[in-house]
Amino acid sequence: MRNLNEDTITQAVLARHAGMSNERLREVMTRLVQHLHAFAREVKLTEAEWAAGIQFLTETGHMCSDKRQEFILLSDTLGLSMLVTAQNNSKPEGCTESTVFGPFHVEGSPEHQLGDDIANGAKGEPCFVSGRVRGIDGKPVPHARMEVWQADEDGFYDVQYAGQDEHRARATLHSDADGRYHFRTIVANPYPIPHDGPVGRMLEALGRHPWRPAHLHFMIQAEGYERLITHVFRNGDRYLDSDAVFGVRSTLIADWVRHDAGIAPDGSRVDTPFYTLDYDFVLNPIEGRAAA
Amino acid sequence: MRNLNEDTITQAVLARHAGMSNERLREVMTRLVQHLHAFAREVKLTEAEWAAGIQFLTETGHMCSDKRQEFILLSDTLGLSMLVTAQNNSKPEGCTESTVFGPFHVEGSPEHQLGDDIANGAKGEPCFVSGRVRGIDGKPVPHARMEVWQADEDGFYDVQYAGQDEHRARATLHSDADGRYHFRTIVANPYPIPHDGPVGRMLEALGRHPWRPAHLHFMIQAEGYERLITHVFRNGDRYLDSDAVFGVRSTLIADWVRHDAGIAPDGSRVDTPFYTLDYDFVLNPIEGRAAA
Repeated sequence: MRNLNEDTITQAVLARHAGMSNERLREVMTRLVQHLHAFAREVKLTEAEWAAGIQFLTETGHMCSDKRQEFILLSDTLGLSMLVTAQNNSKPEGCTESTVFGPFHVEGSPEHQLGDDIANGAKGEPCFVSGRVRGIDGKPVPHARMEVWQADEDGFYDVQYAGQDEHRARATLHSDADGRYHFRTIVANPYPIPHDGPVGRMLEALGRHPWRPAHLHFMIQAEGYERLITHVFRNGDRYLDSDAVFGVRSTLIADWVRHDAGIAPDGSRVDTPFYTLDYDFVLNPIEGRAAA
Repeated sequence: MRNLNEDTITQAVLARHAGMSNERLREVMTRLVQHLHAFAREVKLTEAEWAAGIQFLTETGHMCSDKRQEFILLSDTLGLSMLVTAQNNSKPEGCTESTVFGPFHVEGSPEHQLGDDIANGAKGEPCFVSGRVRGIDGKPVPHARMEVWQADEDGFYDVQYAGQDEHRARATLHSDADGRYHFRTIVANPYPIPHDGPVGRMLEALGRHPWRPAHLHFMIQAEGYERLITHVFRNGDRYLDSDAVFGVRSTLIADWVRHDAGIAPDGSRVDTPFYTLDYDFVLNPIEGRAAA
């Protein structure tokens, strides 16, 4: 312990954890220390690079606020978020796939009735979204709680506007007795993830663009089913093959159909071109509970 | 790219970096992504654990200020700092070994003359430190710039006191024409690293104590020699075999000799017990420059 070197220090750190009672914590910390050390050894990390890493993490932390989560952006852009999402959400064929949560979900978004315009002033072309929530057995899932959130046509979520405390293009809805849902919002467009911080500088240094293909976020919960966190992506988007956060699944891509001004699906008259999106979600029953 | 899973995402992320012109950055990022992903796969990191990790990093970032560097504490307590120090500072036998820098160095500490009391009001028993700076060839290193810093008897560095802007137990000195140095300060005592933040909570969860054995920090620079960043540790300290940051080298342990009240090495009269420490530093010449 008094003469550690770069080869023996890993075992010395792990030996310090040997008495830990929490088995899972020991497993996680053991692998974390092993990989952290192996990384530093394999690249022979220099002291200047170590200092740059400390500085990067510090700036990333300082960029985090109740409105911005730079560490989630870092995890997303390094593919870690999608890896964790994928390995924790394997489902039977036919269920709607999960994708990354992203940093822009907000607890307690406003309750809306089916048919409402959830845009609440967010800028963008009108879009009418509808579909059904079903179980893998095809049965409708009534009264599923559906949270929806999205960016506006300038590429910003409501929470990204300073001094803008009202929710926009963000809502909580419930499917009806037949599992059906519909609401009005604005059309989704591609947008760059916030890139005025450390993660943006990292992407630039890596020669990567910060863009995400257009998408609508959903979080769907219903008694007896696994919670589903996913997006619906817009077919034809130029960034579908280079999503900055690696979140695209081909099964989550849908046609957002453009219509000329006229009568919308809800019977109202729309004086500008508008879009419709129809998408069905298939939830995975929780074993046992679903059978009970 | 539209159907990544937990096994294929690593290659997808690395492929995104293929066009990068900075070879070293590509090497570092490639290994970083590989180890980060392998860690998450091997422990099958859950979404809740991932979220706890994001929260931990965010709190660690928020704890960092111009007076506190929680990410350095994290690196220190996970053994990364000592690993990086060790692999970048291999030296010929006989040179003074390096150890961790720590988070409490301050740029621009006050210049002092040899013989000064650098405590400047810091609490603790008096200690008279002396020694010589030499090259590996035995020749004295004259006018070496020596930065010294340490904690007081309550275990705190000056910068840890809120509203205390004056430097205490921290100085910049220069060895004399024969490479000799001496100054008065306070005796070093063991102290816990700051453990009221995320790193302290981590250590507690790991069943680890936060203590460091008593030590005095030195950073020594002289024309023609490699910069030396090290500590001198106090022989007999109970934490020498369990330093929270894995920094102890047996060659850096020295006897801090206790004396009864009386005449100090500088000829002054001390009315309380005091300590003396004699330690010689051996610097590593920079190849070529040293020979020039």
